[in-house]
Amino acid sequence: MIKVSVMYPNGPGVRFDHDYYRDKHMPLIKRRMGVALRYYTVDKGLTGGTSQAPATYVGMCHLLCDSLESYHASFGPHAEELTADIRNFTDRTPVTQISEVVVENSGKL
Amino acid sequence: MIKVSVMYPNGPGVRFDHDYYRDKHMPLIKRRMGVALRYYTVDKGLTGGTSQAPATYVGMCHLLCDSLESYHASFGPHAEELTADIRNFTDRTPVTQISEVVVENSGKL
Repeated sequence: MIKVSVMYPNGPGVRFDHDYYRDKHMPLIKRRMGVALRYYTVDKGLTGGTSQAPATYVGMCHLLCDSLESYHASFGPHAEELTADIRNFTDRTPVTQISEVVVENSGKL
Repeated sequence: MIKVSVMYPNGPGVRFDHDYYRDKHMPLIKRRMGVALRYYTVDKGLTGGTSQAPATYVGMCHLLCDSLESYHASFGPHAEELTADIRNFTDRTPVTQISEVVVENSGKL
């Protein structure tokens, strides 16, 4: 299984509509990717490693797919539409990373 | 619920022992934090957003806890030991972020 992490850098004056992200953007991704998107997670940045430090990312999502192939086949045809929707909730450009899922959920080990 | 994301920056010549991380370091965290650590996930960085770009992070884990209080109460007393163990698998210093879990698993919505 692979995980696509989409991470929006935090910073002074950042615009990020967490409600739109949760209620509109992420469900849109799910509708477009269909069953190839096994599930996703959504995070709202609170702080850095200490309560005084700012969070590195204001918001993040992680998309879980069976393989790189299923991700590209399901996301690729909708990439333009989904990327264009980013401007509806933030002025930031995300950092994207693809990872191999080593442990999906330790509670299931 | 909150998520503690621990992200190890990638880079040329990075040292990161993914086996030690999965088999030794993460189980040690679980033993020390006990039930306060609901579960964790582990990722191994493959690429950036395109297959040509390097991953931003060589490895990541995410620790899921009920609250900031339960995280600090369970991790804090063992922070020194757990931080010292980092040198056993990598030469990198992690970026840590604490997030509010907005969507834990969309498959459960």
